[in-house]
Amino acid sequence: MRRSTGFFPTQKEAPREAQIISHQLMLRAGLVDQHCSGIYTWLPLGVRVLKNIETIVRQEQDKIGAQEILMPTIQSADLWKESGRFDAYGDEMLRIQDRHGRDLLYTPTAEEVVADIARKHLKSYRDLPALVYQIHWKFRDEIRPRFGVMRGREFLMKDGYSIDRDEASARASYKKMMTAYVRTFRRLGLTAVPARADTGPIGGDLSHEFLIVAQTGESELFYEERLEGLMANNEDGKDDVDVDDILNIYAATDEIHDPKTCPIPAEKLKVARGIEVGHIFYFGTKYSEALNVNLAGQDNKNIIPHMGSYGIGVSRIVAAIIEASHDDRGIIWPESVAPYKIGLINIRVKDKACSKVCDELYNDFQNAGIDVIYDDRDERPGTKFADMDLMGIPYQISIGPRSLEKGTVEFKNRKTGATEELTLAEVTTRIKKRFVT
Amino acid sequence: MRRSTGFFPTQKEAPREAQIISHQLMLRAGLVDQHCSGIYTWLPLGVRVLKNIETIVRQEQDKIGAQEILMPTIQSADLWKESGRFDAYGDEMLRIQDRHGRDLLYTPTAEEVVADIARKHLKSYRDLPALVYQIHWKFRDEIRPRFGVMRGREFLMKDGYSIDRDEASARASYKKMMTAYVRTFRRLGLTAVPARADTGPIGGDLSHEFLIVAQTGESELFYEERLEGLMANNEDGKDDVDVDDILNIYAATDEIHDPKTCPIPAEKLKVARGIEVGHIFYFGTKYSEALNVNLAGQDNKNIIPHMGSYGIGVSRIVAAIIEASHDDRGIIWPESVAPYKIGLINIRVKDKACSKVCDELYNDFQNAGIDVIYDDRDERPGTKFADMDLMGIPYQISIGPRSLEKGTVEFKNRKTGATEELTLAEVTTRIKKRFVT
Repeated sequence: MRRSTGFFPTQKEAPREAQIISHQLMLRAGLVDQHCSGIYTWLPLGVRVLKNIETIVRQEQDKIGAQEILMPTIQSADLWKESGRFDAYGDEMLRIQDRHGRDLLYTPTAEEVVADIARKHLKSYRDLPALVYQIHWKFRDEIRPRFGVMRGREFLMKDGYSIDRDEASARASYKKMMTAYVRTFRRLGLTAVPARADTGPIGGDLSHEFLIVAQTGESELFYEERLEGLMANNEDGKDDVDVDDILNIYAATDEIHDPKTCPIPAEKLKVARGIEVGHIFYFGTKYSEALNVNLAGQDNKNIIPHMGSYGIGVSRIVAAIIEASHDDRGIIWPESVAPYKIGLINIRVKDKACSKVCDELYNDFQNAGIDVIYDDRDERPGTKFADMDLMGIPYQISIGPRSLEKGTVEFKNRKTGATEELTLAEVTTRIKKRFVT
Repeated sequence: MRRSTGFFPTQKEAPREAQIISHQLMLRAGLVDQHCSGIYTWLPLGVRVLKNIETIVRQEQDKIGAQEILMPTIQSADLWKESGRFDAYGDEMLRIQDRHGRDLLYTPTAEEVVADIARKHLKSYRDLPALVYQIHWKFRDEIRPRFGVMRGREFLMKDGYSIDRDEASARASYKKMMTAYVRTFRRLGLTAVPARADTGPIGGDLSHEFLIVAQTGESELFYEERLEGLMANNEDGKDDVDVDDILNIYAATDEIHDPKTCPIPAEKLKVARGIEVGHIFYFGTKYSEALNVNLAGQDNKNIIPHMGSYGIGVSRIVAAIIEASHDDRGIIWPESVAPYKIGLINIRVKDKACSKVCDELYNDFQNAGIDVIYDDRDERPGTKFADMDLMGIPYQISIGPRSLEKGTVEFKNRKTGATEELTLAEVTTRIKKRFVT
């Protein structure tokens, strides 16, 4: 995309109310625009990041055989009254009446709808296990929305649901989903710690939160450091996951960590703050019982299926990545989620020879299907360099009349800050080798 | 996907309340499940169709340089009070109060939010033209929802918006978007007629509806038949669009067609019923004036930008395609939107040799990235044939012990009904040639 014709509203200063760095940078880089308290419009650069995250999440869900569905954002209160959560959920649930005075709500999660679909469409144990997910918008009417999309009201979530014939099968689904989560966070360039957690209002007896270690995290986290090695991205692209191994290592949120009973000596325990980016639950028959989900069993006895639910905060991850990966110049996107892989800077657009070279390189990359943002505006070079760094573009190519005289361009790695002088042929070959599959 | 492990709830009978064929077939084929009046859950098969349509719509928007954004589904009433539409919209707008008693609404369209973003982030005429779109959920509280997703309450829409410095530039954006629409509908396998239409509550003086000719259409439509040729899909994949040519041909909805003033003699006029799948508007400065969008002009005078908005009913198109393309056995998907391109039927799963051949073919297709649904259930062949036709899978391969003895498989074209006996090698080559790029 050409910067001159695209809509990329960057700002030098963040508004004062943006307290944390991710919120400041998301506003400054033009990822989002605040619509009202806790509600944001995602601008072009933000949508590209969001879609990249969505794609990785989707691919890893598909890989474990989960099937994508889409449940309504506006749901009838009837099912929620059946489960008892219409009253239990409290003020965070956005309650609505339609023109006929019927109670509706904006979905904060969807266990009831999944149980309802199960009772309508699943007939017998042979239809199990069933594993579905959606990537869809949710609403929680936070009393004090803050920290931008980190704690907003309308947010994008992947919520998955497993339906199994018994506890053993449900635990197997839980582990399968955990495997997908480890792979997902690795591909997102994040080291997420899976910590035993309280099940909260969802219920159940088995639950893990996935947390990104960051100073601005809202939760306190206790874990054995070697867990990080298992969760982190393997540079060589291996996607081995040994969930049993991971589950054997101590990690817990402050809600359930108790120094008195913790089996790990304090000196071996890492204490950190974490940002919750995923939460998974096994809650047995809580919702299938409440909603009377009865399937034919193998031995003519009816079975009440065991369920689990599995969330990933897709829009929150945008902020979490920034909290974990930025410097004083701006965002540093991991390649996998970067809105554009390449930033091309035309240092002097009024120089015809320079613009010709830049235009040709841009067209060449475009035709090769490489995501490139091309700053062809008539602005000072300093403004352009600053904007590319602010936006976090991983690889930046700057071309000006002076370097062209030498027959070279400047190639910069946003993450390391390293710059190289390369010929046009060298830079083209390197980029295509990396990004054309 | 293997049918045995997937969630594909097909039904022999449609519920009585489903009056039109698309609604019946969407329920029977397991595309959607009714959650409550006018609100549906999209099941796995339905999501795949929806995503395919979404992808085509997105690609054609991107091709004309429109940029994707995502505006909130829950919007503050403030902007809508500024434009006067909070009162004007009536009962179709779903109105909500949050926990603090602030007025919110579920977006039925988004001209106000776009104008608000424009006044906050666009500075001068140099930032124009701006062209943005989103593919996102909307809600209209229809008094009597009916016909399934055709006239539901929650629906998926592509809504695009243009912001231009003056009328001439706005009309150019309008034509650009029209070009994208022609290409989009062609790729969806639809012949959509662009008819001059009333602007309705959006306002403005230039507007076209895109309608699919179908007996169940809610609008009456008058047009010169040669328009169909210009709009229809070119088999050779050309995407030439001459908008001026199209605009010169008479087509109008009943709202504005007047036999007395119509320039085309009655005998040359085709009268048909149509399903509205798109609607585009140029409405000048209506919203930019109401919301005080002022940009710096070229000559130091401020300009009030001219705007247009451009809708495509993405979820409605699923139903419209079915209305236009089905037979008494079920849905006939155009290849471009089919949930799976290939249906593989294992006629006798208990026959080890037969299952081995089927499994291998399935794995081969999967590895080649071909979308295939594999019916490996222990069911009667008749049930499997019926389900594949109901689901509308374009190409079906049936493999049983008897055909394998002869060294062949049955290859069926869903659309023409033609079947061929082919060797395994022939069928593999043909499919890969078509679907592996």
